[in-house]
Amino acid sequence: MSSPDWIGADWGTSHLRVWSMQGSTVLDHASSDAGMGKLTPDQFEGALLTAIAPWLTDATMTVVACGMVGARQGWIEAPYASVPCTPVPQRMVTAQTLDPRLTVHVVPGLKQTAPADVMRGEETQIAGFLALNADWDGIICLPGTHTKWAHISAGEVVSFQTFMTGEQFALLSGQSVLKHSIGTGWDEDAFKEALNDTMSRPERLAAYLFNLRARHLLEGQDPDTARGRLSGLLLGAELAASRPFWLGQHVAIIGDDALARAYSIALAAQGVPAIVADAPRMTLAGLQAAYRMTKEST
Amino acid sequence: MSSPDWIGADWGTSHLRVWSMQGSTVLDHASSDAGMGKLTPDQFEGALLTAIAPWLTDATMTVVACGMVGARQGWIEAPYASVPCTPVPQRMVTAQTLDPRLTVHVVPGLKQTAPADVMRGEETQIAGFLALNADWDGIICLPGTHTKWAHISAGEVVSFQTFMTGEQFALLSGQSVLKHSIGTGWDEDAFKEALNDTMSRPERLAAYLFNLRARHLLEGQDPDTARGRLSGLLLGAELAASRPFWLGQHVAIIGDDALARAYSIALAAQGVPAIVADAPRMTLAGLQAAYRMTKEST
Repeated sequence: MSSPDWIGADWGTSHLRVWSMQGSTVLDHASSDAGMGKLTPDQFEGALLTAIAPWLTDATMTVVACGMVGARQGWIEAPYASVPCTPVPQRMVTAQTLDPRLTVHVVPGLKQTAPADVMRGEETQIAGFLALNADWDGIICLPGTHTKWAHISAGEVVSFQTFMTGEQFALLSGQSVLKHSIGTGWDEDAFKEALNDTMSRPERLAAYLFNLRARHLLEGQDPDTARGRLSGLLLGAELAASRPFWLGQHVAIIGDDALARAYSIALAAQGVPAIVADAPRMTLAGLQAAYRMTKEST
Repeated sequence: MSSPDWIGADWGTSHLRVWSMQGSTVLDHASSDAGMGKLTPDQFEGALLTAIAPWLTDATMTVVACGMVGARQGWIEAPYASVPCTPVPQRMVTAQTLDPRLTVHVVPGLKQTAPADVMRGEETQIAGFLALNADWDGIICLPGTHTKWAHISAGEVVSFQTFMTGEQFALLSGQSVLKHSIGTGWDEDAFKEALNDTMSRPERLAAYLFNLRARHLLEGQDPDTARGRLSGLLLGAELAASRPFWLGQHVAIIGDDALARAYSIALAAQGVPAIVADAPRMTLAGLQAAYRMTKEST
């Protein structure tokens, strides 16, 4: 196996994903569950060394990392850059390492003052998307536990807004009284109908939620219908609130999982065709853009 | 201690509360955590006997029970009565007992077909309120994990609607990313401001929620302010949706805890003065009304 000239790391709360890179070519990749949430600050270097050990030689190695690794409770705090700004940072933060071979740069997140908002990790995906799509203006939607909508203009993140839709879905389907009514499948027709219900009457969300329970008890509602409806209800409320972002705009969705597909279906139903980009690929392209910055600044 | 002529039982998911009664006079009361959620069907009789043992003699004893004890997964299923109907049941379901001294009547819950909705336990509180407030027409609000709004006319429950607001508050404050930002105190000014935010823009709820996290990270927002705001955001969305119930109506709130006070403050801010009734007292009055029905029907 050839030797990498740099290593990219996507280090979130629950996972660490690493890529062995030669320029823009992926030589190898690996992942582990050594997420930020499981580590104390002095455990990050060991977790990184374990993950990238097969790729190290006696030479020095540059690692570029993004995500919660740069949070206050991470390895080293990489203070947020304020929007409007480019998603690729002007300056990264360097983590202290005991192993003299490692140089670890951490990508800072973005913050917005009014209304207060933050992102950490998604800025790298946005940077990757813009590196691959030069001069692209529009809206980038990043579905997830905390979905982000970002307004992009002239290569900068102008503003953004976070919705807790994904986390609400997880809590309601897994830990609320609704867990008895929700299946593992997903009914697209039920999704679309529920989407319309909350897009037109978003304030009724908490009532529509309990209605899922009542339909289960009284009508034996199919659990896959209930799952489709739950995701539709939550996403409809989000689309009602994020309308100023997507209405009449170019929209790109970063993500290729079931959640991203649900956003794509929902936007298409509003007459907004969204392009869909693969999330790990955008992360990697963003890390590469950040790596190039480190070369230019030295 | 004098001997009771009947026993009332409020048997919910997490608790069992029993009262030793002589007519409408409480001789004694007790409670335990032997809720429906912890018991298999064959364990209910033993749990009841343990709770009421000090009050039993060799004579037979009538027990009237309400709540989840009558659910499908309870002691015996007491099928829902369909609204519109009186909250005091025309007919109760009798549980099988091994102990020949016990006669246990279970109060059925209420159901609504369109939109589908159910209640179990609250109907007894409504019956109690109406027993104590003859000829009262208006709206009864029963705050809780699943808050109920019921439209009362001519002694009947005409329609009702359930909101999952309380459960959402518990999940978001205790198990979501917001748990790091939420304190134990409760700031009333923050509550009122947030209430207005979602009453006027209910669709923005999921964005306002993450804003609590961002304000904590960026501005060090006071955790009691965050708790006040979280309850205000959720309640404001509920009031926006339940407006057809409370606007221009007489409203009674059954409950005397912090949650019920929050509803009272929120309604007062909309120019709706609500009367507040003590929940256990309403339960007991409702059980007594149900007990009287058993006497009349024999």
